[in-house]
Amino acid sequence: MGNQTAVLTPQHEDFPRWYQGVLTKAKLAENGPARGTMVIRPTGYAIWERMQAEIDARIKVAGAQNAYFPLLIPMSFFEREAEHVEGFSPELAVVTHGGGKELTEPLAIRPTSEAVIGEYMAKWVDSYRDLPLLLNQWSNVVRWELRPRIFLRTTEFLWQEGHTAHVTESDARKYARRILHEVYQDFMRSVLAIPVIVGSKTASERFAGAENTMTCEGIMRDGKALQMGTSHEFGQRFSRAFNITYSSAEGATELCWTTSWGASTRMLGGLIMTHGDDFGIVVPPALAPVQVVVVVVKDIDGAVTRTASALAQDLKGRGVRVKLDDNIDQAFGWRATEWDLQGVPIRVELGPRDLADNVALLYRRDTRDKTQVGIDNLVAEVEQLTGRIQTDMFEAATARRDALVIDCATLDEAREAAQTGVARLPWELVGTSGERDLATSGVTVRCLQLSDGSLPDTDHDRGALAYVARAY
Amino acid sequence: MGNQTAVLTPQHEDFPRWYQGVLTKAKLAENGPARGTMVIRPTGYAIWERMQAEIDARIKVAGAQNAYFPLLIPMSFFEREAEHVEGFSPELAVVTHGGGKELTEPLAIRPTSEAVIGEYMAKWVDSYRDLPLLLNQWSNVVRWELRPRIFLRTTEFLWQEGHTAHVTESDARKYARRILHEVYQDFMRSVLAIPVIVGSKTASERFAGAENTMTCEGIMRDGKALQMGTSHEFGQRFSRAFNITYSSAEGATELCWTTSWGASTRMLGGLIMTHGDDFGIVVPPALAPVQVVVVVVKDIDGAVTRTASALAQDLKGRGVRVKLDDNIDQAFGWRATEWDLQGVPIRVELGPRDLADNVALLYRRDTRDKTQVGIDNLVAEVEQLTGRIQTDMFEAATARRDALVIDCATLDEAREAAQTGVARLPWELVGTSGERDLATSGVTVRCLQLSDGSLPDTDHDRGALAYVARAY
Repeated sequence: MGNQTAVLTPQHEDFPRWYQGVLTKAKLAENGPARGTMVIRPTGYAIWERMQAEIDARIKVAGAQNAYFPLLIPMSFFEREAEHVEGFSPELAVVTHGGGKELTEPLAIRPTSEAVIGEYMAKWVDSYRDLPLLLNQWSNVVRWELRPRIFLRTTEFLWQEGHTAHVTESDARKYARRILHEVYQDFMRSVLAIPVIVGSKTASERFAGAENTMTCEGIMRDGKALQMGTSHEFGQRFSRAFNITYSSAEGATELCWTTSWGASTRMLGGLIMTHGDDFGIVVPPALAPVQVVVVVVKDIDGAVTRTASALAQDLKGRGVRVKLDDNIDQAFGWRATEWDLQGVPIRVELGPRDLADNVALLYRRDTRDKTQVGIDNLVAEVEQLTGRIQTDMFEAATARRDALVIDCATLDEAREAAQTGVARLPWELVGTSGERDLATSGVTVRCLQLSDGSLPDTDHDRGALAYVARAY
Repeated sequence: MGNQTAVLTPQHEDFPRWYQGVLTKAKLAENGPARGTMVIRPTGYAIWERMQAEIDARIKVAGAQNAYFPLLIPMSFFEREAEHVEGFSPELAVVTHGGGKELTEPLAIRPTSEAVIGEYMAKWVDSYRDLPLLLNQWSNVVRWELRPRIFLRTTEFLWQEGHTAHVTESDARKYARRILHEVYQDFMRSVLAIPVIVGSKTASERFAGAENTMTCEGIMRDGKALQMGTSHEFGQRFSRAFNITYSSAEGATELCWTTSWGASTRMLGGLIMTHGDDFGIVVPPALAPVQVVVVVVKDIDGAVTRTASALAQDLKGRGVRVKLDDNIDQAFGWRATEWDLQGVPIRVELGPRDLADNVALLYRRDTRDKTQVGIDNLVAEVEQLTGRIQTDMFEAATARRDALVIDCATLDEAREAAQTGVARLPWELVGTSGERDLATSGVTVRCLQLSDGSLPDTDHDRGALAYVARAY
């Protein structure tokens, strides 16, 4: 690969420019025609589809059912919960005309569906036998963004949002944590290979209207944090606002305890900025829409193509997601650059000389190492390598993250450390006034965690450690 | 089942009321808070997810790739193609405010994505090597509906829309037909068990801006037609409007030939009204999210539940989508009524006496027949029955459809026949003036078909038969 020319701005030179470059060059996404919107191209969308499938399967195991609620919500719905309306009002897109006429009540495009789902939960829940009610929705949402950035902050994005109602506070709490750990954390670690830091948000960083917000924070290669999935407890605030009540076994009318939780196309940004390098994105095998590309380097009489095609078929038969690149009209170097850009985890390269020696080159995208393997062993080698890359990518990302996290003893130290990485210090040294102080330097408390890695209870955060960083 | 009380208005009494009733009682969907919108409940959404999976797999086999384009489209985009803007202007929902401010250019919520996708195709297609460009999108769209009806006509609905660009007219034509037959017709017949009539639309019934629209028309039990999936050829009209050009092998700049095609949550309406009966909906096994429910009729010492649970596990192990109903706190009759309403194709019923005799009752929802089978044979019997129900449902639906189609010799006869069913007559007897005449009685030409069942070419419709009906 020595003669490969750099197609991207190196990360160390200009990380934001590298990010923009890789979005374009890997054909992941581009800006939409309306400000702040994005077009997700097939290469990017295929990754999103795999994210959806993996998360959806975990959500179903957790017992939630998918449903669909309307895009357009009467403005009055937002006004029922004070903090919720305050949080979302500045971000709403408003439909004032429909069918050629001005509407009597303007409609908001959903920025989140708490309000409308709350309305229907109230209808559907009658007795304690109807609980828990566990709903999830895959949809688009719109939040007006002043500083849009593809995948990270866009006016429209795609996500799933779960909404649940429970009999007791303890049930609601357990479920919100189950989703955090068994859906988000497990998916992010075992599929995305991202060692997210899992913790609770401070009061000032909570979701609008939530009593507790728990988060999975990814640490990007540039030292900034990215909130990649959150799970919220609402206590009884939403059930009070929307009258979500049940009759207990004893016949009393009681308010439900509700939760909500979401993860979005932001995760694509997290994937790119956690694993990407100067040659493109790097997709972990468990996630990759194409895990292996079998490349015909060149061919004379069709023999190489036949063998490559047979190898691809064998891999497919073993359940590997594989693609054949027999496009020998284009130079091999150009094609290799493209596959690097798109981050396909494994490349099998085969040319006439390899065929004569009954070998192929096995290239792994994460380390960019090449080894020669016998064609007869190739399928087994690829299967082994798939698992190894997945593990190695998680370990490498963990090492990079750990190198970015710096233990600090004062707020000043933390502010300083957070300019290039993540500061960790006792929450007692920060506090609400420290948070305000950090904010003036563009730094926030990303989450609180107890020293054993577990989550502090809301308002019982003594002894908690604060992770402090700049954030996307 | 003798003592089962009717929970629905019988179809023959009031079909529209039956339809509304089954939506509610089977918990499929209900009205949203904003006029014309709908909430798709978990039971309904699970069917939609299975529809999506089956259609998506066929689209991928046909080589198209999924992508995502923005919800919000600048109004100016619609004005580029004259017929397209004329067709959609009256139906647009318009965002005039975002982020608390009035927008300088109002944004339309997509009623379809031809315009925005056209813009990006123009960017992405450079040379003939980039063609065909085969894109598909799963999304929501909004078209202002004056007479909304859940699943059939709603202001917001869910669908897929495919958009493709080709080098030649013949390539575009072939692909539009491939989608019509291999994706829509195959899915509707083999999965939905609906014997759709496949034909071409007359000029007045074409999609706004299309040069040819091909359709799959379902005939509902009340004799009305439902357009369930369409595939359009745009010729070079959209590529001219959006400047979708390619440079040929000879270096000349040429306009592409484009197509689009879509199918939506309307299909849920088609499913309900094709197979539903006075006891609820009936879902074909190939589609059903739950194919078999194993019902514990009653239990004393847990022995019935254990056997039922083991049977459910065995079925699951054989790849059957199965659910266990061990909810013996609720009366069996009530539960049977619920499963009937939701249309689960097969019910296995097991009580203490059955267990003593080592038998179970096997109930098929389509015919409502019950047979006793030995528990040891049950899994094999269920597997056989699954295939048999699928075939029988298609045959029964075909017989009902055929009984509704009446060959007519004059326009007057056709108008009369179309009041209760579908009239078939030579298109030459109708023509454009006949179409206008029929419209005054609320009747339209649903499609044209040649006598051998094939599609007439655009403007070569001599000898074609017209299917004339009322329509949803």
